[in-house]
Amino acid sequence: MRATLMYGAGDVRVEDVPDSVIKQPTDALVRVTASCICGSDLWPYGSMAPADGPARMGHEFIGIVEATGSEVTTVKTGDLVVSPFAFSDGTCAFCHEGLYTSCEHGTFWDMEPYEGGQAEAVRVPLADGTLVKLPVAADSALMPSLLTLSDVFGTGYHAAVAGGVNERTSVTVIGDGAVGLLAVLSAKRLGAEQIILIGRHKVRTDLGREFGATDIVSGRGEEGIAAVRELTGGHGTHAVLEAVGNMPAYEQAVGVVRPGGVISRVGVPQYEDAPIGFGSLFAHNIRLAGGPAPVRAYIEELMPDILNGTLEPGKVFDATTDLDGVPAGYQDMAERTSLKVLIKP
Amino acid sequence: MRATLMYGAGDVRVEDVPDSVIKQPTDALVRVTASCICGSDLWPYGSMAPADGPARMGHEFIGIVEATGSEVTTVKTGDLVVSPFAFSDGTCAFCHEGLYTSCEHGTFWDMEPYEGGQAEAVRVPLADGTLVKLPVAADSALMPSLLTLSDVFGTGYHAAVAGGVNERTSVTVIGDGAVGLLAVLSAKRLGAEQIILIGRHKVRTDLGREFGATDIVSGRGEEGIAAVRELTGGHGTHAVLEAVGNMPAYEQAVGVVRPGGVISRVGVPQYEDAPIGFGSLFAHNIRLAGGPAPVRAYIEELMPDILNGTLEPGKVFDATTDLDGVPAGYQDMAERTSLKVLIKP
Repeated sequence: MRATLMYGAGDVRVEDVPDSVIKQPTDALVRVTASCICGSDLWPYGSMAPADGPARMGHEFIGIVEATGSEVTTVKTGDLVVSPFAFSDGTCAFCHEGLYTSCEHGTFWDMEPYEGGQAEAVRVPLADGTLVKLPVAADSALMPSLLTLSDVFGTGYHAAVAGGVNERTSVTVIGDGAVGLLAVLSAKRLGAEQIILIGRHKVRTDLGREFGATDIVSGRGEEGIAAVRELTGGHGTHAVLEAVGNMPAYEQAVGVVRPGGVISRVGVPQYEDAPIGFGSLFAHNIRLAGGPAPVRAYIEELMPDILNGTLEPGKVFDATTDLDGVPAGYQDMAERTSLKVLIKP
Repeated sequence: MRATLMYGAGDVRVEDVPDSVIKQPTDALVRVTASCICGSDLWPYGSMAPADGPARMGHEFIGIVEATGSEVTTVKTGDLVVSPFAFSDGTCAFCHEGLYTSCEHGTFWDMEPYEGGQAEAVRVPLADGTLVKLPVAADSALMPSLLTLSDVFGTGYHAAVAGGVNERTSVTVIGDGAVGLLAVLSAKRLGAEQIILIGRHKVRTDLGREFGATDIVSGRGEEGIAAVRELTGGHGTHAVLEAVGNMPAYEQAVGVVRPGGVISRVGVPQYEDAPIGFGSLFAHNIRLAGGPAPVRAYIEELMPDILNGTLEPGKVFDATTDLDGVPAGYQDMAERTSLKVLIKP
């Protein structure tokens, strides 16, 4: 079968690899019908050392179950299913608490060296805990939106949930990538009346407005901070949803968060140490929240809004390719000429 | 009048200073009847540069109102009152939300150069928003416990509240100082069944057990982390109440917090940058909370438990002195021969 491998920074190839097959009684084999490239794939695309490769890529996919291990009971051959970006057993203490990304037996697809979603097929471990059946056909027009349940919509939603967003919460979203835009949509869904989107690409911020952003701030650094403060009576917003992951984004979050507010991070941090002392977080009881989204927890909650047409998170896809076009898709996303690329293998 | 001044590290003096007097119509003049030395006073006592001094000391006190400005309505001459360690107007947006320490017009006593609680008298700005009347006489046996409402009990309680402690929460408390011990008492009050206290001084950890600690861990660093993990099935506790403020305490907090849990800090951070990236907080959705406790918000809530004898937080005081003994009190606390020193001016 064919699959996407990253050999190092800027070096993505689609190659023949051994067919994925059932190995454990809890596995399912899924023939991928829709997959995509993630903003987080761009971090290794920008910096991966060749010694760390080749790595199988892709952690967001929808597909048809082709075979199941003997212990799998919740999905069967022929089912159309969506997979979260992490697999989980659904039975451990953390899964029971909804923290599927800390499952005692699961892990992230990105940690799995021989499987990936940007491929023709995937072996899905812990299929019962991981996969969710979709009540539509594989050629449904809802497919782009349903595919966002595998990561970006659930991740944006997690940012808003972990940020405590509700009707009384003012919100800043940092980042106009797919996750940032879906954090806007999520904040709107949770009732926030003021949603300030920090972004600089008009096509994206226009989509942000469509998703519910009430204000767009395009300034970088201190200029952006001043603009948000001006929009909020000088105080900043109750919640800051940080959907980028680098230090300038964190510093901007600290700059625009209201005393007593929360910085909710879903952009994978590209730093380890950062300011959290008296002058940054402590003096005003600023909280820090977020992490890898347990998107498995949100799929059933968010899916009805997609099925009934209330929400259309799939609008974040602005390009579609087959597997051959995946390397170009990485390049387009890295150059920001594409927002998010959908793959039909 | 006489007051305590710090001239630099290790150099505390009690000197004659100009009498405190009413200056604003919102002021009250309070004759101090009970005050104390705070663990946070030991940070400058350990490191203050002479160029930053002399600084008036003391932010915890009870006293009798001696005079009030023309606009003061909630307290009157002769009232016995307790002051939080920060003063606040009680009317701004942040006070209305209970975040008194971020009051738009108030500040910490420690920021006030010409007033302090370790003195014979104090001018209290914003008296209506700040002072709370006590329904007992100044010689009440409850005085030590009521005095803890000015800081250490409210601060320990804030740690527990910001840490989301309830009946289903396992708790680690880092620090066996007065705040740590009262964080134990607070976690117990909020219903936590497992409360692990990390501390090494038997007299203090014995008081911790009396306050509700179920387990005592005395190991430093990795050894302490391993001990807490062993007590919690390997996972750590839902809440970690960090009542020290230095980097080893923070690192220990990261080491013992459960996935999805919260590190609630009330020890004033002696660092600015600290690990918060993928390997420390992000991977397992660890949250960070806490800050200067808005103790004003907790005084009415906690006082009844003291008045009716349910709780005795004043047990953290193990020494009493007059003003002359304050320099020795600092030394005793710095050398940990005293836990917390009460001052009767």
